[in-house]
Amino acid sequence: MNVLVIGGAGFIGSFLCNELIKNGENVVAVDNLMRGKIQNLKSVWNRKKFSFFEHDVNDTAFLEKVLREKKIEYIFHLAANSDIQASATDPQIEFDCTAKTTWNILSSMMKCGVKNLFFASTSAVYGEPTGKKFSENDELNPISYYGSAKMASEAFIKSFAYMNNLNCLIFRFPNVIGPNLTHGVFYDFIDRLKKNPLELRVLGDGTQQKPYMHVQDLANCILSLYKENTGLNIYNVGVDSHTTVKTIAEMVVSEMGLKNCNIIYQNKNVGWKGDVPFFAYNLNKIHATGWKSSMSSDEAALRTIKEALNFYDHK
Amino acid sequence: MNVLVIGGAGFIGSFLCNELIKNGENVVAVDNLMRGKIQNLKSVWNRKKFSFFEHDVNDTAFLEKVLREKKIEYIFHLAANSDIQASATDPQIEFDCTAKTTWNILSSMMKCGVKNLFFASTSAVYGEPTGKKFSENDELNPISYYGSAKMASEAFIKSFAYMNNLNCLIFRFPNVIGPNLTHGVFYDFIDRLKKNPLELRVLGDGTQQKPYMHVQDLANCILSLYKENTGLNIYNVGVDSHTTVKTIAEMVVSEMGLKNCNIIYQNKNVGWKGDVPFFAYNLNKIHATGWKSSMSSDEAALRTIKEALNFYDHK
Repeated sequence: MNVLVIGGAGFIGSFLCNELIKNGENVVAVDNLMRGKIQNLKSVWNRKKFSFFEHDVNDTAFLEKVLREKKIEYIFHLAANSDIQASATDPQIEFDCTAKTTWNILSSMMKCGVKNLFFASTSAVYGEPTGKKFSENDELNPISYYGSAKMASEAFIKSFAYMNNLNCLIFRFPNVIGPNLTHGVFYDFIDRLKKNPLELRVLGDGTQQKPYMHVQDLANCILSLYKENTGLNIYNVGVDSHTTVKTIAEMVVSEMGLKNCNIIYQNKNVGWKGDVPFFAYNLNKIHATGWKSSMSSDEAALRTIKEALNFYDHK
Repeated sequence: MNVLVIGGAGFIGSFLCNELIKNGENVVAVDNLMRGKIQNLKSVWNRKKFSFFEHDVNDTAFLEKVLREKKIEYIFHLAANSDIQASATDPQIEFDCTAKTTWNILSSMMKCGVKNLFFASTSAVYGEPTGKKFSENDELNPISYYGSAKMASEAFIKSFAYMNNLNCLIFRFPNVIGPNLTHGVFYDFIDRLKKNPLELRVLGDGTQQKPYMHVQDLANCILSLYKENTGLNIYNVGVDSHTTVKTIAEMVVSEMGLKNCNIIYQNKNVGWKGDVPFFAYNLNKIHATGWKSSMSSDEAALRTIKEALNFYDHK
């Protein structure tokens, strides 16, 4: 099958390109390299089944040309601003890179007759924790611009799917980690400890916890469902466990062998406005498909730290 | 208070301008006149408390200039493509006129420090009937591009409201009718019967029913809540009753005095793709504020037909 991975040079997109090629697909990747990096694609760069375009998909003339000339049958849409914290002060990026890209991709699919879409949504569509685990059909109350642009994207997908009989698979991603992360707490802690191995100042009191999922588990989940998907289906995808900021800080300090490092916490429990200190998914729907994450949140965290340190050591 | 009505020359916007002036507000109206008409504003055109700009609010430099120079404290955002049937074949209009306008208005509010917003959402965010009455916190499953662009707008409002402490009042409008309607079944039936008084062909079998609300009742509801609103509040606004297409056809034929007119129905019960043949709201939340529609759906329909015929007679 000829597939297009949009945002294909990003952290998750590049990993998925590799997995799709392993699965026998002909992969075309597009990325505007705003956050994606060519070096993420080094494992697939010379493969016959892989081609790459550096371009913005908001140029729909370009996108439609690719869809037609490459006879694309399936689109994996992972293009988005991936740094929620950054867009908290510059929301326009969420409209342009997250909401508008989705609209333009759907519009181009309609014009070119492409019928299959995978869309990377997010836990951030749910907003602040309510005390119960979020299920797929719960009300969406995003508090970040990022979450609202993803909710808008889901809205667009719903109408295009209905009006054009598309098959759309939407995953609401948790916090996904693994090799080639470019920001976030793992990247940040390691970076700062490289500069000052004696002290790590943590934003918040360290009790914030999130379910972290390794990108390998996410890719496995996508591969288990994308071909058979019919109609519009939305899944929470994640792990049943959580990892606290404190655990991450201690793991990083330990893995770096910094015995004299002092970890300093603050007295409040939220990092920055728009962040969600704790949330939990109801995963019954995705588990009913037979898929389950192979790593716990802590296992994913530890593997990611090891991968990142290996990367740093070889820089 | 200095208020801005965006989409102020439209069917609902122009009615609201008049009501807001009666309520003592200084009203600035903006409309790109894509669907709005200057003649809708004839009752307020020469009022001291009224001013008008023909402009597109997607020009944010213009919008921010108006917000600052007119010292706007409250925005009523009614700009949208209002013809769902038209956008079924040309979805781009929904992105540009419905979703993007909302984003740009929110962005301009943030930059200019405007804290209060009224937003005209729609029953179309709910999508196909599920058999139970739709409540405000139900899952949204829009099937029309129009509904999805309004859902996207609600998403944007949620994040901007949270991040900037805005007061946002969102009404999910039902089918609103009254003087100056420019399309829809009432307009359409009268128009066609003017051309051929002997026959009225109805799309569908006539059993499709919708709750119709008169714009006067809608305006009264807005006026009863806009000043006191704090935080983000979403309300279904509507009437408890419904009117079938058959009733409308018979009312129009009767009011026009066409005794020899033959009304012809089809054997299927849906008009066009993306239309929703029947839905019902749960109105408990809006009724708990003390407001209730003064007219039933049939009463609103009859008044609208009389208003339209009076308009036609004076053309």
